Formats: sequence, structure tokens, C-alpha cells
Amino acid sequence: MHIESSFTNLTPAKVLEAQSRIGRHINRTAIIESERLSEWLGHSIIFKCDNFQKTGAFKARGALNTVMSLVERGDTPKKVVAFSSGNHAQAVAWSCNKFGIPATIYMEKTVSPIKVQATKSYGAEVVLTESRQQAMDICEEEVKSGAYFIPPYDNDMVIAGQGTCALETFQDGVEPDAVFVPLGGGGLVAGTFLASQLFNKKIKVFGCEPANGSDAYNSFMSGTIFKLDALPDTIADGVKTLSIAPRTFHFIRQLAGVTIHSEQEIIYFTQWIYHLCKIICEPSCSLSLAGAFSWLKEQTSPKTVLVILSGGNVSAETYNAIWKTSYLDKIPAL
Amino acid sequence: MHIESSFTNLTPAKVLEAQSRIGRHINRTAIIESERLSEWLGHSIIFKCDNFQKTGAFKARGALNTVMSLVERGDTPKKVVAFSSGNHAQAVAWSCNKFGIPATIYMEKTVSPIKVQATKSYGAEVVLTESRQQAMDICEEEVKSGAYFIPPYDNDMVIAGQGTCALETFQDGVEPDAVFVPLGGGGLVAGTFLASQLFNKKIKVFGCEPANGSDAYNSFMSGTIFKLDALPDTIADGVKTLSIAPRTFHFIRQLAGVTIHSEQEIIYFTQWIYHLCKIICEPSCSLSLAGAFSWLKEQTSPKTVLVILSGGNVSAETYNAIWKTSYLDKIPAL
Repeated sequence: MHIESSFTNLTPAKVLEAQSRIGRHINRTAIIESERLSEWLGHSIIFKCDNFQKTGAFKARGALNTVMSLVERGDTPKKVVAFSSGNHAQAVAWSCNKFGIPATIYMEKTVSPIKVQATKSYGAEVVLTESRQQAMDICEEEVKSGAYFIPPYDNDMVIAGQGTCALETFQDGVEPDAVFVPLGGGGLVAGTFLASQLFNKKIKVFGCEPANGSDAYNSFMSGTIFKLDALPDTIADGVKTLSIAPRTFHFIRQLAGVTIHSEQEIIYFTQWIYHLCKIICEPSCSLSLAGAFSWLKEQTSPKTVLVILSGGNVSAETYNAIWKTSYLDKIPAL
Repeated sequence: MHIESSFTNLTPAKVLEAQSRIGRHINRTAIIESERLSEWLGHSIIFKCDNFQKTGAFKARGALNTVMSLVERGDTPKKVVAFSSGNHAQAVAWSCNKFGIPATIYMEKTVSPIKVQATKSYGAEVVLTESRQQAMDICEEEVKSGAYFIPPYDNDMVIAGQGTCALETFQDGVEPDAVFVPLGGGGLVAGTFLASQLFNKKIKVFGCEPANGSDAYNSFMSGTIFKLDALPDTIADGVKTLSIAPRTFHFIRQLAGVTIHSEQEIIYFTQWIYHLCKIICEPSCSLSLAGAFSWLKEQTSPKTVLVILSGGNVSAETYNAIWKTSYLDKIPAL
């Protein structure tokens, strides 16, 4: 695949445009607060629930914005391809299905059958490959034959779409001091940063990453993109990436910070979100709450933080990993 | 404790009164539909989410209605007692705390520490007992010394309070052909039946029970209250009771039916609610969906069913039991 340079035409206005485009097809997802959690911490913790989004994750926003942008300008692709073992697959399948565009999703053969089933149920063809690299190579071939490739994050329309998640939260009246966002390839955090610029440039936006795969943290600290040799070993499967892209790094370097969290922290906060909010979110989402905690510890006056919950597609294996040991006897406290 | 006769002064109007009394203190909980589930089944399946209720379960409604009724008529108790190893404990603790009434909850010593912690966090004193029988005996002694005892279901004000869950759903525009309700002691199903009478006497109300503890089913079929010798062995811990009460039986015998479900069915539907709705509910709630499925199988035209999700307090052990085997590769279909 052709990886574009760090140059991007993205402006905050593109997020507004994305919202006008996709708004009526997606869920304006719930914003919730656990009174008990906020009371315990002495701060207001607001959760944006994109686990309730179409296809179970924010990814529906970016994929649909990309597809609809193409349709809008008369460039409806005759075929769309993508590779993904996660939420991007379902998002692309669902988005293409809305416009009758054939989609093929390449997934590594080790992917769980549930994810294959979900992607197929949205009308896409699923092809299993030997490896991620093979999936990427085939997509590249497909593009040469005229297919349109939708990357998981390295695309302006994808990023603009993801930004609508924070945008609608701000529109709905949430005025946070800081926003915490799970960080994998950086599409959601880049879009969130853009959306925040429309409301209040003082809002601090943080990306939150597993310590086991701290490539974005290292990139943020060093000023150059850091690449992992292998996909990180983390329960937060929604943010398993080798590196961010130059395009997302352009925004990530402007963030207030990148936080990193241990596997135990991720599991701890997942359990507490389940326990207090009664909603299902992926362990990746708990990175946001973990990030908020670490920031709030340093605050000397009451703050309002927005914690973005990015998805809710959890496999049986992951549930078992989350609940192997219970941490609910250790109440969250700053 | 004095068990009152089957005579009850309950009328549907008492549910309306309960709502006026408790409405501003409780959550008007979400009503959701999984488009995919409804599409797969060819019927409209509406979920009422009382897992999002204060204290995590519908029990807050009945306990608060009881406490507020007493306060309202100038009979504020100097002390409240209850026995419970589940959601009723937290509901009584929370309700009493609102009015500064000291509450003592008796729990068997085998109860999970999380439940003790949650009950204490609402301001109640928790006393651990050797057995359920001992807890009941001590409550009886306490009543002789002037404490007010709030039973989990055998009380008119408790039942009227539980009825507000269905009442607000009907008020919010849901017009179901049938309503499915988890059935333990029968408080929720009795209240739901009363509420349905206010809207449309043709609404069929079903109680749904584990096959492993089918006392209400046997009572419904035989016309006399059937008592189990021991608490049933079921993952649906919210409906573990030895028997219904004469008071609840008065309404249960007027239901459209009582359905019974295997442990595997309960787990299957719990997994699918998690997967499709991204919300956490107790396995007890899945009895309602299982009941709806069994009824819908026999229908020859599209129906609208209301599935009441009664609570969302799930322990780590229960999560592990739910997800030991995944049934997500077997899509629900009638």
C-alpha cells in the first residue's frame, strides 16, 4: 500500500462535515456518569459510550464517512477491500452494505470465528490469510486491480469520521477539562483532537496506550515514529498496532500527553466500569479511564474529564481473562 | 416473621401512587432494542433496562416505595431490618440512607465480600449470620423490639414499587403483546401484572423461572403453593427462592403463563444479550428473553414483546460461569 506522507488536509471543519454526512446513519451514543465513581474521586467522570455505536465500535464512523465521501463525489468504488481482525472489519462491511458496494475483508486465519461471522453478517466476503503481512499484500494487489482500500486509521476521511464521537459529546453540553482516548493507530485520538479545537482549544486531549505496546508514547516523547517489531501482547486488543502513521502522528504530537498503563491496570478499570456502569466495553476502553485516573491524581481542584469508551465487542476468551482475578474489593480512589 | 395471608389490598392504582412517590429519586431506565435480534427473529424485542436502576436492580423501586410510604404517613421507623444476600440488601440500605433511617442487613456468612461492601457503602450495618434461617430469626426478634422489617417481595408496598418498572415502559410508548419477567419470589411479576392492567388487559404477562427451581411453575400448574426443600442450584442467583408467597401467588395465578428454562438456555441468552446489546445483566434477566423465545416460537404473526432486564450486579465467579463455554457461534433463530 501507498503510505501517504505526514501531510494532511484535515481541519476541524472536516469533522463537522463528516457529522453532516454520517449523522443520520449512526447512533448518537449515550453519555453517562457513575455518581458513585465521581463521588469517590471528587471529580466528574463522564463516559461517552461508543460501545453502543453501530457494529459495536466507533470504527463505524470513520468507515462510513470514507464510503459516503466517495459516493458523494461520484467515485462509488466497484469494490472495497480492507484488512482487520477487529472492529474495522465490521465497520467497513457495514458501511459498504449500506450502499450495495461489494466488500472483501482479509483476516488472519487465527481470528476468532465470531468475528468472521459478524463481518459476514454485515454482507462482506471474508478471506482468511496466513498472516497480517499476506493480508496487506493482497490488499495492495486488489488496489492495483481497481479496488478501493480503506485503511484502519491512515486516511483523512477515516480520522474525520472518528472525530464525530467527541464532537457530538461537546455539542451535547459536556465541557471537559481533559479528554482521554484509547490510542492504537491514532485515528480516534487525532479526530478527537480536531473536534476539541472546534470548542475550546484549552481542552487537554490525551492518548492512552498499553505499556506492553508503548510505541505512540515513545514516538510522542522522542518526536519520531517508533515502530514495534511485533504486535504487542496486551488484553487491549483494540489498540494492537505496530505503529502510528505519519498522518496521525501529526496530531498526536500536539496532544497534552500520552499515558501508558499496565495490563493489571487495564483489567482493574475494565472490571470497575462493568461494575459501576453495567455496560460492556472492550479492555481497550479502560485505557481511557486509567489515563484519566493518572491525570486526576495530580489535580488540586475538581475537574471534569471525558472518558471515551471506544467499543464493546468482547470475546469469551477476553471475558475469561478479565474476570480471572477480581479486583472489585479494591475500590478506586485517588 | 408474620406471613400475611393471600389477602392483599393491592390495586393497579397503587403502582401509579408508587410512581408519584418514588419517581424523582429513581432512574427512568433506558428502553432498548437490538435491531439485529429483532430482524433475526422477525419480531420486535424490546428490553427494559433496570440493570441501570439505582443500586443496579429493580429492587430499589420496591424498597424505596416501602420506606417512603412509611415516612409519608408519619411512621418513620427508628430502625429497618432485612435479610438478603442479593439486590434487596442494597436496595433497603440505599432507601433507608435517603431518609437517615438506620438499617441493619443480615446476610449469610457465605455471601461474597463485594456484596457486603456494596451494602455498607450505602450506609447500612451488615451482620453476617450462620444461615438464612438464623437471619430470619434475628429479624423476627428485631421486629419485636420495634424495628421495621422490609421483606423482599411479600409486601404490598414492595410489589407496587416493582410495578413502576413496567408502568414507565408502557407510559414511554411500548405497546407489547406480551411481557416476560424473571420470577423469584414474584414481586416483580406481580407488580408488572398490576401495571399492565392500567394499559391494556390483553397484554399477556409471563413469569420466567429456572427449571432447576420450578416452584412457581409447579404452583401455577397445580393451583397451590409449591415449596422447594433447598435453594435451587442455578446461575440465575437473583431468583433463588424457596417459594412464592400467598400474596404474590394471588397475582401469579392470573398470569398468561410461567415458563421454565435450563441452565444452558440461561447462559446462552445471557451471552447473546451481552453480545448484541453491550449491557451487563444478571443471568436472572436472561430468563425473560428465554421465555420470550419460547412464546414467539408459537406465534404465526409478528409480535412485540417486552423483556424486562431486572438487574446488573454480576460477580466475578458468575462472569466466569457465563463465559466458560461460548455459544456465540449459534445465532439465535426461532
